[in-house]
Amino acid sequence: MRIALHQTAGHPGDVAANLAEADAAAAGASAAGARLLILPEMFLTGYDIGPEIHALAEPLDGPSHSAMAATARRHGIAILYGHGERAGGATYNAARMVDAEGRPLLDYRKTHLYGAGERALYRPGDALAPVVEVESLRVGVLICYDVEFPEAVRALALAGADLVAVPTALPVPTPAVPTVLIPARAYENQIFVAYANRCGRERTLEFEGLSTVAAPDGTVLARAGAGPELLLAEIGPAAYAGSRAANPYLADRRPELYGR
Amino acid sequence: MRIALHQTAGHPGDVAANLAEADAAAAGASAAGARLLILPEMFLTGYDIGPEIHALAEPLDGPSHSAMAATARRHGIAILYGHGERAGGATYNAARMVDAEGRPLLDYRKTHLYGAGERALYRPGDALAPVVEVESLRVGVLICYDVEFPEAVRALALAGADLVAVPTALPVPTPAVPTVLIPARAYENQIFVAYANRCGRERTLEFEGLSTVAAPDGTVLARAGAGPELLLAEIGPAAYAGSRAANPYLADRRPELYGR
Repeated sequence: MRIALHQTAGHPGDVAANLAEADAAAAGASAAGARLLILPEMFLTGYDIGPEIHALAEPLDGPSHSAMAATARRHGIAILYGHGERAGGATYNAARMVDAEGRPLLDYRKTHLYGAGERALYRPGDALAPVVEVESLRVGVLICYDVEFPEAVRALALAGADLVAVPTALPVPTPAVPTVLIPARAYENQIFVAYANRCGRERTLEFEGLSTVAAPDGTVLARAGAGPELLLAEIGPAAYAGSRAANPYLADRRPELYGR
Repeated sequence: MRIALHQTAGHPGDVAANLAEADAAAAGASAAGARLLILPEMFLTGYDIGPEIHALAEPLDGPSHSAMAATARRHGIAILYGHGERAGGATYNAARMVDAEGRPLLDYRKTHLYGAGERALYRPGDALAPVVEVESLRVGVLICYDVEFPEAVRALALAGADLVAVPTALPVPTPAVPTVLIPARAYENQIFVAYANRCGRERTLEFEGLSTVAAPDGTVLARAGAGPELLLAEIGPAAYAGSRAANPYLADRRPELYGR
């Protein structure tokens, strides 16, 4: 199954412009044969917009989610996108995945917040999301810093994920995350990992780009540069049966030895 | 603190020759200013010697361990070395670390055996080893396949390791382990990882070489080629305080979310 990652600077603070950009990206990804489009962290509002996020964040039945569902239906493609979720008086750094008919498949709230800046704005999520099926593929979702924790990816792999899809907003200079950690997460779980980053500048941050798709054997299937890019990759688990047989990590774990 | 990794083909089945080689390596490492020498997996006997290991494996009070202690004392250097341990009617794939006066610091039995071949020969260990002090450094030990499990390295990092030292016997073609996983283990725990491999051929296997020392920021401090080599690296945790502050993985874990 082909997937597409939309690496972009987006339009910080301009939800309407981001919805329009998502529609164009979905059209392009669908035309390129992709069945799943992954947008970056906090795509709907921008990531680095400070406390303005509390006004722009929407509940899950808000109008931007209806618009994204319509985009998915219009172009016949599943979409995973980052957004600010407003619920219970708090704001979450969240992600939603909808199927090609616009139906919600998964909602997730980032569980590992990074640094004092995120902790000041967001309430952390209190659970990993279940693995869900997107056509033939079992997909798990994490957001940005989450994927840097091997435990989080392991939990999704043990839950059956073939692909862990990660909207992110990774600033410079941290190339070790896409170049070292993402291929390692793929290899050590014998799964695919797709890491869709922002690029360019927002208000105070410059983003790394380098969106990456890594395969179960640790190879990099696709990597973006520093600028805007629609990155395509083929996710074909059957081609990696040999790698999985030679590296049966999930079966060979000894959790009784690891403590917490 | 400087460390040395002795990448070698060794002398499969010839313990006396391996003891002599260890003494020469310790002399060279000590002369180069190293305070810890790491030898590969099953160094004393060779790795790929089949059931002959049961006759060559020794109890921990056996003559080869006395000889290694004398080597450490003679050259004033701590040594970590792989060996076959005979105990309770079983053979273990083990490692011992002695200090610069030859006193045992740590004994460990490989907990993650790789494949049917190792399982036919060895009984797995039933615990990770404690982190021990080697001069100013807190050192944890794993063996080969163990380090491919992020849980095992995490447990040692949480126990306070600055350096995880790994005797290994990695055959071709698996370069993803030294090039992808070892730097990731270092970065995701903000520690040093030293991976000391065999090279050349034994009876049925050709080894990868590529012994690697990775730093807390995911950079490779030293990497061997395909042939015999004494690899040196400086292990200086204080130089990576900035990386640790920017990546507080141990503090930011959420073990309540990960299940087993």
